[in-house]
Amino acid sequence: MRKCIATVSVSGTLTEKLAAIAAAGFDGVEIFENDLISCPLSPEQIRDRAAGLGLGIDLYQPLRDFEAVGPATLEHNLRRAERKFRLMERLGAGMLLVCSSVSPESADDDELAAEHLHALAELAARHGIRVAYEALAWGRHVNEYLHAWRIVRLAGHPNLGTCLDSFHILSRGSDPIGIEAIPGDKVFFLQLADAPLLAMDVLQWSRHYRCFPGQGGFDVAGLVRHVLNTGYQGPLSLEVFNDVFRQSDARRTALDAMRSLIALEESLDRREPGPVIPTGFAFTELTTGTAAAARTPGPSAGDTFTPAPGEAATLVGLLAALGFARTGAHPTKPVEMWEQGEARILLNATGTGAALAAIGLETPDPAASARRAEDLLAPVLPRERAPGEAPLEAIAAPDGTQIFFCRSGRADHPDWTGDFAGEPAPPTVSRPGPVTATPTPPTPPPPGCVTRVDHVALTQPWHHFDEASLFYRSVLGLRPLESMEVPQPSGLLRSRAMAGPDEAVRMVLNQARVGARQTPWQHVALACDDIRSIARRLRAEHPGLLLPIPGNYYDDLEARHDVGPEIRELGLLYDRDEHGEFLHLYTITVGRIFFEIVERTGGYRGYGAANAAVRLAVQHARGPGAP
Amino acid sequence: MRKCIATVSVSGTLTEKLAAIAAAGFDGVEIFENDLISCPLSPEQIRDRAAGLGLGIDLYQPLRDFEAVGPATLEHNLRRAERKFRLMERLGAGMLLVCSSVSPESADDDELAAEHLHALAELAARHGIRVAYEALAWGRHVNEYLHAWRIVRLAGHPNLGTCLDSFHILSRGSDPIGIEAIPGDKVFFLQLADAPLLAMDVLQWSRHYRCFPGQGGFDVAGLVRHVLNTGYQGPLSLEVFNDVFRQSDARRTALDAMRSLIALEESLDRREPGPVIPTGFAFTELTTGTAAAARTPGPSAGDTFTPAPGEAATLVGLLAALGFARTGAHPTKPVEMWEQGEARILLNATGTGAALAAIGLETPDPAASARRAEDLLAPVLPRERAPGEAPLEAIAAPDGTQIFFCRSGRADHPDWTGDFAGEPAPPTVSRPGPVTATPTPPTPPPPGCVTRVDHVALTQPWHHFDEASLFYRSVLGLRPLESMEVPQPSGLLRSRAMAGPDEAVRMVLNQARVGARQTPWQHVALACDDIRSIARRLRAEHPGLLLPIPGNYYDDLEARHDVGPEIRELGLLYDRDEHGEFLHLYTITVGRIFFEIVERTGGYRGYGAANAAVRLAVQHARGPGAP
Repeated sequence: MRKCIATVSVSGTLTEKLAAIAAAGFDGVEIFENDLISCPLSPEQIRDRAAGLGLGIDLYQPLRDFEAVGPATLEHNLRRAERKFRLMERLGAGMLLVCSSVSPESADDDELAAEHLHALAELAARHGIRVAYEALAWGRHVNEYLHAWRIVRLAGHPNLGTCLDSFHILSRGSDPIGIEAIPGDKVFFLQLADAPLLAMDVLQWSRHYRCFPGQGGFDVAGLVRHVLNTGYQGPLSLEVFNDVFRQSDARRTALDAMRSLIALEESLDRREPGPVIPTGFAFTELTTGTAAAARTPGPSAGDTFTPAPGEAATLVGLLAALGFARTGAHPTKPVEMWEQGEARILLNATGTGAALAAIGLETPDPAASARRAEDLLAPVLPRERAPGEAPLEAIAAPDGTQIFFCRSGRADHPDWTGDFAGEPAPPTVSRPGPVTATPTPPTPPPPGCVTRVDHVALTQPWHHFDEASLFYRSVLGLRPLESMEVPQPSGLLRSRAMAGPDEAVRMVLNQARVGARQTPWQHVALACDDIRSIARRLRAEHPGLLLPIPGNYYDDLEARHDVGPEIRELGLLYDRDEHGEFLHLYTITVGRIFFEIVERTGGYRGYGAANAAVRLAVQHARGPGAP
Repeated sequence: MRKCIATVSVSGTLTEKLAAIAAAGFDGVEIFENDLISCPLSPEQIRDRAAGLGLGIDLYQPLRDFEAVGPATLEHNLRRAERKFRLMERLGAGMLLVCSSVSPESADDDELAAEHLHALAELAARHGIRVAYEALAWGRHVNEYLHAWRIVRLAGHPNLGTCLDSFHILSRGSDPIGIEAIPGDKVFFLQLADAPLLAMDVLQWSRHYRCFPGQGGFDVAGLVRHVLNTGYQGPLSLEVFNDVFRQSDARRTALDAMRSLIALEESLDRREPGPVIPTGFAFTELTTGTAAAARTPGPSAGDTFTPAPGEAATLVGLLAALGFARTGAHPTKPVEMWEQGEARILLNATGTGAALAAIGLETPDPAASARRAEDLLAPVLPRERAPGEAPLEAIAAPDGTQIFFCRSGRADHPDWTGDFAGEPAPPTVSRPGPVTATPTPPTPPPPGCVTRVDHVALTQPWHHFDEASLFYRSVLGLRPLESMEVPQPSGLLRSRAMAGPDEAVRMVLNQARVGARQTPWQHVALACDDIRSIARRLRAEHPGLLLPIPGNYYDDLEARHDVGPEIRELGLLYDRDEHGEFLHLYTITVGRIFFEIVERTGGYRGYGAANAAVRLAVQHARGPGAP
C-alpha cells in the first residue's frame, strides 16, 4: 500500500521534514498548514522540492471550523476556502482535510452541515480538488466517525468523502466495525496513530501522546482491516503529534515511522511470520575494556568485592564466584566463553569498560530472522569472519546493542560455539586470588546453580524509548507486558517488560532520566531453582559481592507478608503475584553492568519491580551516575 | 507557622533529602515510607540525623488500604500497623497518615470504617501516636474531605483526627468552605500542593503534576484561610509529587518550596505588601562581549544586517538603526547608556557575547523591594560601587538574570542615571558605516519612535520553569496570564506571560527544550505608537535588519482576516483579540538577543503568540541553536 506521513509528525523545518521523510522511503506526505506558513519557499517551490524527492503531496490539512454556521460566517469561510484551494493548486495537492467544527458558533444541525459541505465540495470541484471530512474526537457536535459519514452521505457530492483517523475513533472507544458501513470509495483518506492507554482529556492526549502504530495500546491493525474491507484503495498515512518525536532527529523518527507501517502491513496479513521469532537466549556478550582504554569515571560503585586491577578482572571474578566456568576462547579475537547451565556469557576484552555489547538469540532460521529484521529497517552489521568460522547474522538495535541470530548445537546449521571449542587461549585478564576459574570444560554445576538467562534489562535514552519498544516488539516478536513507573532518587523510572512466545525470551526496557547524558546500567538476570543455596554460598565466600539491602526493607516486608527470617538473613528480595513467588538478589555493579539471580515459583509472571526502587536507591547511594 | 515538607517532594536519598530540607530552613518533615525503606540507616540513626539538622519528624506516611475490610484482613492490617507504630517509636514520629482505602476489598460502610479506625487509634494510643485519616481524591468509597471527617467523628477517638490535603480537595472541585465545619483540634495535619489546571485522570495528575503553592492554578491560600479559621495550630506541610522536582537538585527544590510557603504566608495576611511592587522598567542591560572574549558558535543567525567585526558593533548598529541614541557612559565601567522615549538600554562590554544580563525595575522604595526579595530567598547581589555613585539594590533571579530595583529621576532618592550623566567616554566599540549614532544627548525622536519597553521575554531551563514562575510571581508581584504551547521546529515551546499591576511590567517566560544544554534566546519588546513608520524607515534604510517573514504567512493571514496589503509590504505580523489589534516585527538575532517592536491598539492584551511559531521556524532555519 502507498505509505504517507503528515509533516507534523517529525521535527525541523518543512524542507528538513521532506528530506527525512523521503529518505525513510515514504511515497507521500500530508502537508500540515503551519509547516507551510513558516516555510520561506513558495508553494510551487515546495511542490517541486517534494517531487524531486519522489514524494507526492497527498493531503493538505486542516481546514477548521467550517460547517454549520450563520450566513455571514459561511460566506467568510468559503472565501477562506477559495484561497486555500488556489494555494493547493499551486502546491499540487489534490485533497483537503476538513475537521469537524469545535466552534461555539457551529449549530447542531446535520442538514445545515451537509449543505455547507456540499457548497465547499462544489467549490473544490472547480479546482479539481476533493474534500475529506473528519470527526475530531473533541468536535463540538460531530465527534463520532459514523456521524461524519452520515453528514457526508447527506451532502451527496462526488468531491466529498470522509477521512478516518484511528486516534479519533479508538480514543473515544468507538467500535471500528461500523467502518464497514461506508463504501470504500467514500473513504477518501486514512490517518493512523496509536497512543498509550491514558485516562485524560482527549485533546491533550491527542496533542502530546500519540505514537506510531505498535508503540501504544490501540488495535490499529484491527481498524485498518475494517477499512480495507470497505475496498479502500488510498494510502496508509501516519499523523502523530508527540512531544518527544517533535524534539528528536527527523530522519530517525521517519525511519521509526516507516518501520511501524511495515510491521503493521505484516500484521494485516495475519500470516505467521515464519521461523524467524527467537526461541531463547544463545549468549550475552559483555565488553570488559582493555588495559589501554582511556578510563573515565563511570557509574561503577567503586567498592568492588575484591581488590582488582580493573573492571575486566572484576567481571571475571564475579562470573567465577557466581559459578560460571571458562569453557573456551576465540582463536583470533580477545573473546572468552563462560558457561553455567544453559547460560553463556562472552567476555570481550575491548571497549572502554564493562558494558553489555550484544545479545545472541536462538532462532530456527538465523538468515531468515536477519532478512526480516532488515525488512523492518534494522541496520545489518557487517559480517566479518575468518575462514572456517561459523556465519553469524547480526543487526543493530536502536540503542546500539548488537543482536545476533544463532542456531546453536544443531546438526543442520554451522555451530558458532565451535569457534570457541578449542583450547582456551591464555587468560587475557588476570583473576583475583580467591577465585578459581578453571580453563577446562565445565565441571558439573554445584547445587543451586544458574540454569539459564531469565531476562536482559537494557536502559534506553529517554527520547528513544518508544522507538526501542517498537523495534524489539516488531523485530524480535516480543509482546509488551507490564509497564511500571519505579521511584528512584533521581526521578521516576519508566520500565516496560516484554516477552516472546512461551516467555522464552524476556527483556525489560528502562527509560533513562530525561536529559541524562550518560548511558546507564544494563543487567543480566540469571534464573536458578535454588536461590537460597546460591545466596548462602555467596554470603559465606564472597560477602562483598551482593548489593546490601537495608534492614528497613525487611521490617516493611515482614509487616506486609508472612516471610520467614531466612529472607533477611540471606539478603534476598521477595515479591509475589496471584500466580506465585519471586526471590531475587543483585550483585554489585561493575562498570555499567550488574547481575541479578532470580527464582520463580508457582508461575510468578513479574520482574520484582516492587523491589527495584530499593535497588535503585542503594545503587544511587553507593556511587555516582545513577541512570 | 511551623513549616514542613514531605521527603517525596525532593530528589536524592533520604539523607540527601534531609540535608537539603534543613538547609532551606524547614522545621520538620513528613517521612515517606519508601524513602525510609531504601535507607541504610536504622530508624534511630534517621531520628538522630534529623534532630542534628534541627528537623522534627512531624508525620510518617502513608498507611494504605486499612479500613472497612473483613475480619481476617483487619487482623492482618492491625498486625501491620502495630509494626509501623513500633517503627515510628524508634523514629520519634508522633503521627501516622492513613489514606482512605482504594482496595476493592473495602466496604462502602462508614460505621465499619469508623470502627476499624477506632481500633487503630486505640492501638496507636498505646504507643503515644496519633492517627490522621485523609480522603484520597481517588479513594474507593471515601474521596471527599467531609466524608473522611464524618468517619473520624463517628469513630470518636482522641487519637484520631483528619488530614486535609489541598490537592485532594481542590482537584475534585470540592468547596473548601466546608473545612470550617471541622473543629481545629480534629484537623491533625495540613498538606499543601498546587497543580496546573489539567483535565486528566486525578491519580496521574497527582502523581506527576503537583507543584508548590503559587506555581499552579489552585487557590491554595484561600483553602489555608479556611483551615486557620477552624483554629488549626499544626504545621503547613508541602507534599508534592512532580516528575521535574524529582530530577532536580534537592537543595534548589527545597529553597523553591520554602519560597512558596513564605509567599503563601504573606498572602494569608491579605495585607498589601507595601511600596515594593515594581511600577515599570528602568532599563535592560545587555552584555556585548569583549574583543578578547573567547567566542563559541552561538545561536546567532550569522547573517547580520551589515558586515560588522562582532556582536558588540552589531548591537550598537542595531540600536542606532532602531532610533536609540547614546546618551552617556559610565565613568569607571565599560557600560554605555542608550535611550529612546522612556526606554533605556545599557550596553556592557563584558561577557562572551550579546546576551541579556540584567533588568532594572522602577519601585517606590528600592531598599524595601530588595529586603522583601531577600525574605523570599532571592540571592542578594554584592553592592559594588565607587564613591559618589548611586546605590543600586540588586538580586539574582533563578535563571541568573540580575534584577535591579531603581528609583529614577526622583528628588527623594539618589538617581542612578546620574552615574551616566557625564560626557560619554570614547566609543568602546566601533560602529558600522551606515549608522549614525551621535555621542550627544538625545535629539527629538523621529516620528514613529519607540516609547518604552513593552515586555521582556526570558527563556528558562526546562527543569526550572515552575521555579522561575514562582520567583517572578512572588518577588516581582507579577500575576500569570495566558499560558501557551507554541509549535516550533524542535518541539512545543511552553510560554507563560506575566504582568504586574496596570500591566506596567510585563514579562514572558519561555521554557527551553527538554534536555537543551544551550541557554537560548532572550528578547526585548519595545512599544511604539506608529509601527508602520518604523517599519517603512527600516525597510528603506536597513532592509537586512528585519527578520524576513515568509510570503505563505501573508497568504494565510489574508485568508483569515481582512487586512490591507500594507501589512505584507511592510513585513509586519498581525494578531487580534476581542479587545484590539497587535502589529509587530522582529529584528534579526545578535548572539542570544533580538528585539521586537510592537504596537497595541484598542486594548489588545496578548503577546502575538499566534505568530511566534512563524518566528521560531524562521529563526531555526537561519541558524543553529534554536531554543
